[in-house]
Amino acid sequence: MSYNSFGHMFRVTTWGESHGAALGCVVDGTPPGLPLTADDLQVWLDRRRPGQNRFTTQRREPDEIKILSGVFEDDNTDGQVTTGAPISLLIENVDQRSKDYGDIKDKFRPGHADYTYHAKYGLRDYRGGGRSSARETAARVAAGGIARKILGASVVIRGALVQMGPHKINRDAWDWDQISENPFWCPDAQTAKTWETYLDDLRKAGSSCGAVIEVVASGVKPGLGAPVYGKLDADLAAAMMSINAVKGVEIGAGFEAATLTGEQNADEMRQGEHGRPRFLSNQAGGILGGISTGQDIVVRFAVKPTSSILTPRKTITTDGKETQIVTKGRHDPCVGIRAVPVGEAMMACVLTDQLLRHRGQTGGA
Amino acid sequence: MSYNSFGHMFRVTTWGESHGAALGCVVDGTPPGLPLTADDLQVWLDRRRPGQNRFTTQRREPDEIKILSGVFEDDNTDGQVTTGAPISLLIENVDQRSKDYGDIKDKFRPGHADYTYHAKYGLRDYRGGGRSSARETAARVAAGGIARKILGASVVIRGALVQMGPHKINRDAWDWDQISENPFWCPDAQTAKTWETYLDDLRKAGSSCGAVIEVVASGVKPGLGAPVYGKLDADLAAAMMSINAVKGVEIGAGFEAATLTGEQNADEMRQGEHGRPRFLSNQAGGILGGISTGQDIVVRFAVKPTSSILTPRKTITTDGKETQIVTKGRHDPCVGIRAVPVGEAMMACVLTDQLLRHRGQTGGA
Amino acid sequence: MSYNSFGHMFRVTTWGESHGAALGCVVDGTPPGLPLTADDLQVWLDRRRPGQNRFTTQRREPDEIKILSGVFEDDNTDGQVTTGAPISLLIENVDQRSKDYGDIKDKFRPGHADYTYHAKYGLRDYRGGGRSSARETAARVAAGGIARKILGASVVIRGALVQMGPHKINRDAWDWDQISENPFWCPDAQTAKTWETYLDDLRKAGSSCGAVIEVVASGVKPGLGAPVYGKLDADLAAAMMSINAVKGVEIGAGFEAATLTGEQNADEMRQGEHGRPRFLSNQAGGILGGISTGQDIVVRFAVKPTSSILTPRKTITTDGKETQIVTKGRHDPCVGIRAVPVGEAMMACVLTDQLLRHRGQTGGA
Amino acid sequence: MSYNSFGHMFRVTTWGESHGAALGCVVDGTPPGLPLTADDLQVWLDRRRPGQNRFTTQRREPDEIKILSGVFEDDNTDGQVTTGAPISLLIENVDQRSKDYGDIKDKFRPGHADYTYHAKYGLRDYRGGGRSSARETAARVAAGGIARKILGASVVIRGALVQMGPHKINRDAWDWDQISENPFWCPDAQTAKTWETYLDDLRKAGSSCGAVIEVVASGVKPGLGAPVYGKLDADLAAAMMSINAVKGVEIGAGFEAATLTGEQNADEMRQGEHGRPRFLSNQAGGILGGISTGQDIVVRFAVKPTSSILTPRKTITTDGKETQIVTKGRHDPCVGIRAVPVGEAMMACVLTDQLLRHRGQTGGA
Repeated sequence: MSYNSFGHMFRVTTWGESHGAALGCVVDGTPPGLPLTADDLQVWLDRRRPGQNRFTTQRREPDEIKILSGVFEDDNTDGQVTTGAPISLLIENVDQRSKDYGDIKDKFRPGHADYTYHAKYGLRDYRGGGRSSARETAARVAAGGIARKILGASVVIRGALVQMGPHKINRDAWDWDQISENPFWCPDAQTAKTWETYLDDLRKAGSSCGAVIEVVASGVKPGLGAPVYGKLDADLAAAMMSINAVKGVEIGAGFEAATLTGEQNADEMRQGEHGRPRFLSNQAGGILGGISTGQDIVVRFAVKPTSSILTPRKTITTDGKETQIVTKGRHDPCVGIRAVPVGEAMMACVLTDQLLRHRGQTGGA
Repeated sequence: MSYNSFGHMFRVTTWGESHGAALGCVVDGTPPGLPLTADDLQVWLDRRRPGQNRFTTQRREPDEIKILSGVFEDDNTDGQVTTGAPISLLIENVDQRSKDYGDIKDKFRPGHADYTYHAKYGLRDYRGGGRSSARETAARVAAGGIARKILGASVVIRGALVQMGPHKINRDAWDWDQISENPFWCPDAQTAKTWETYLDDLRKAGSSCGAVIEVVASGVKPGLGAPVYGKLDADLAAAMMSINAVKGVEIGAGFEAATLTGEQNADEMRQGEHGRPRFLSNQAGGILGGISTGQDIVVRFAVKPTSSILTPRKTITTDGKETQIVTKGRHDPCVGIRAVPVGEAMMACVLTDQLLRHRGQTGGA
Repeated sequence: MSYNSFGHMFRVTTWGESHGAALGCVVDGTPPGLPLTADDLQVWLDRRRPGQNRFTTQRREPDEIKILSGVFEDDNTDGQVTTGAPISLLIENVDQRSKDYGDIKDKFRPGHADYTYHAKYGLRDYRGGGRSSARETAARVAAGGIARKILGASVVIRGALVQMGPHKINRDAWDWDQISENPFWCPDAQTAKTWETYLDDLRKAGSSCGAVIEVVASGVKPGLGAPVYGKLDADLAAAMMSINAVKGVEIGAGFEAATLTGEQNADEMRQGEHGRPRFLSNQAGGILGGISTGQDIVVRFAVKPTSSILTPRKTITTDGKETQIVTKGRHDPCVGIRAVPVGEAMMACVLTDQLLRHRGQTGGA
Repeated sequence: MSYNSFGHMFRVTTWGESHGAALGCVVDGTPPGLPLTADDLQVWLDRRRPGQNRFTTQRREPDEIKILSGVFEDDNTDGQVTTGAPISLLIENVDQRSKDYGDIKDKFRPGHADYTYHAKYGLRDYRGGGRSSARETAARVAAGGIARKILGASVVIRGALVQMGPHKINRDAWDWDQISENPFWCPDAQTAKTWETYLDDLRKAGSSCGAVIEVVASGVKPGLGAPVYGKLDADLAAAMMSINAVKGVEIGAGFEAATLTGEQNADEMRQGEHGRPRFLSNQAGGILGGISTGQDIVVRFAVKPTSSILTPRKTITTDGKETQIVTKGRHDPCVGIRAVPVGEAMMACVLTDQLLRHRGQTGGA
């Protein structure tokens, strides 16, 4: 069962609400002897942290990670290392701004999970969205940091925003070095400027927009994944779709593949180095039959526009009265921006899980 | 673990290869006392069966389903009913045309799982693609028939082809009754004619094309699904992505959501009947926060073009020599067509699993 | 996968080491709307807590439980209630007495998990046994408190020590009220006195003894459990065997059943109240075919003697030198005593999981 | 979820009823490239097959195993080998003797699962016990044959009957070679004669008796198993308790451990060969902290007496009337005898699953 867990051999269980005391996760199945400190994880959380510029929510959370179990340091170990026992990670909630939840409490915000949680459970923790808040993703990012340690330096996972609202990047201008040069994870300097103007206007108007994120994993060896319901792409689809506000996931050519002919789509092969094939294209996004080909794993996912906007919207109250609502508060005009490190983390976790499963079944390194 | 199983409380495990003796599945977790005969399942298999017109593979398989366990009939039961024990379903392979596999045996077909199975396992059953063959989906369709029984008549699941190659349907002309009037599951009579010409040309040229399928579930009550990794949309994403040749999955507005503003995207609510809200739009595709809203569940998935084409393609042999390959045989120019009933079946299975899980946790009917 | 988790619909994941900062668990799948405060769980932890008399370890741990997530209180709810989201429980380690671990660090203690953890992981957290410490059971007891809430007042779960070393209780003198009148959970006042003398002698001699615990669940309705690998007794066997130092588990007549004839063993039936059968005996321990009969569920498990004793024992060092070891420290002469509340908790968790699974599959209340 | 499945990386799902068309299982997770033919499995089924002497049921089932998937043979493979895909095994039911089920149909047999299945599901397949029949164990034995292949020749798994009714073997006379010299899997020639007389008398009287089986696995390397709920002994406990009619499971000294002192129980260590410790005793039964020590894994389980006896027993009808029942038919006076190969198979499956999991997490061979 997987209400709040994912993965099989590398298994992550998250917990916590937006305005509870803390949030965190338990990571089970980590190989032993892996050097791991809180600092190793903090670096990834710092990349995700909100409040770093005017385009993300002004909630100020230090998101300081604590490792409560599963690591050990003594004379015989190389600094603090994993023991193979479950790793419990904790992040305290600090900036739970005291405020009046009146409106959110009794009205269902359109586009949010308010109504569905109410319908399912008969009650809901309305403070900041409770369990449905994107704060949960901090735990994923931390778990992803452990996963990257397991994958090692040969696997490089990077994400980028490739579309904001209607504005797509120019893929010919893709430069990974640009990612850290703008607040959008945009790999195309020119487009980043367009986005800045676009998003400023949206923000001032109290509106919001959606985005498309692309995550690329390089250095993944062939053979990860499994038929038929253990496919690497099926795991990635579930992982990305489980991120807040995601409405679509695609691999490689994705939906565009529908418009191609077989000749255009099937990646031809030549003999490459190290006994591996060299593919002449990568429409497959690095996955065939659910199993990695050795090419870059390419995943894109669409994030819907932030539902919390300043325009009044029609809704109903918990007791069925028709009304309208304006969602004030500290919100991102484009939540897709902050989804980039989350997508990277989910990629890392899925690859790690498949790596351990592959090693278990086949003995392959 | 889920190499060849999916679902939790309604759990389906499939097995079998394209050219083995048989294929089938074990369905575990079915509620007891449900009327079920082989005929109930055969009707769905007959819809999926290949060889019914010139646009699908000419392999002639009767796909006759046998129920080997999990049902019982006596004086006290209303005909043959489920017992709550696992239901084993078997379909014998009949038309395994004797032929020379020489070319496929020693060469990796581009776009197929040949290379990745070889890389993972060190060997592969190359006959008709072995485990990676779309014949496996017959077992899914059978399992979906059981799922539909559990969901009952109030839930209606229907699929349609909404795009073939570059040709999209006219959504304003959508008519579910047209689905059975053409060989493409096309809900738009005019577009069906366009597709016929388009596909005939492709077929004669030995080429192939991709497609987009839309599956809609109506009558699903609010509350199915769960945070955070048990989301209904995450399950659907994995389920659809696990179907052969699928490269993308989206819910509701899907990738289009990225281009919308918050005002356009968040579905407003009015008070509806039976104490449930009435939504003024369905950009969400019936799912918010991973939980059903009561609106239609709308899923689309993209199927890549058939990789088996008559045009020679560059490839390598299993021992690393560069060569080219032409994939002869009995293949569909657009495998997306036959994916429609498979998508419906996966929708049925996912909804059933979530229904039983919801009932388990909350006691809700 | 279940390295550190158990249960399916009511799923408990524990984490933490003996001498880490804290230990705890995440409980997923709890039904919503259930009143739950830390005090509700503290009462069970207080029963388990060590250091309460001279027969249990003198480690002084307050074992104060904190609920970090999954509960909510507002005007509409009846005090603090569960939300259906994962419940994170935390217990800080307080009394991690500063000491020299030298001997334990480099030598394998016979009867402990020192060697096996070392063999498996290549390293081990030797402080107090690390992950293999019985402190982990505090998390189980807390989870069991939640499970009892779900089961409700109609299900009564009670445990007793029925054998200490070679001394069995007189079952004819069984009196549940005696349980709280002695430090041994002994239901037979006379035997409690015998044990007191026996254990005092052992303690003074620096030796230790084993024990047998019996846990009885009354008020469990018929129908919980499932064929064939989801049997209630199989789940109970795994649950009890997973408790530290347990070497055997039996249901009802247990091993004694081997000596009976079919006539003696098969519990005869008469018609009882509420349309349920009345059984004339309970050799089955309340379970037939893996499913509850409605009679008391009766489980017994054997706990081996504490391995930490003052007598020098032959062992080897981590680098293979032969030596001997004396395990000083704060240890229970009979760890079986403290296993009683743990066994109760595991019974509660298993029954709850099966209850939710039964409700999910069959819809039965 | 695990109604009818067990194992994680080596996962077995069984299906089928006593009097259905067939029974079988799907084995998922098998490493690729392993030589495997039906004959390899048939040998184990032949050992379990009933009707081979007067002490087991006279039902005549050839129990011919068929492999329907997951294997492949071509020029490049060393005979028929596993492919890594799920292996579907099928055994047809042949000797479903036509008879009147009247009595069993409407009355609950004491000691059987009749009432509990009825209580859970509202109906039951009463023919030969349906899903609760011991015929299901044929599928386990077949799966165990695959597991043995994975474990390889260095791991030797053998079972013996060590107690029949009140008659225990003389352990000093244990001789594995005697196992095949008598119809009881008795390792002690003298006791075998005692049992023969005892069982003949019981059989003639229409009565039955219980038994205790011991299964020993030699050659298991240290490190298999995991904390805390993935313990090797917890898995073994569940596996053995899931076998029909089993009421108790113990490891090593088992319940006897309760009577020992710490000095007697904790196995002392000396340095052994190959860098591994040599233990001076094996009270632990080869498992400490849930992880294998490298010593023999020793498990015992108790089987209750056959519930089908010729003595009239009090019972009730399905509609609540008090009556009595005599269970005629083809039954074993001591079902424990046939449980020996089943216990061996479960040991093999559990060890294999833990081996693959260990390799997955740690990379250890």
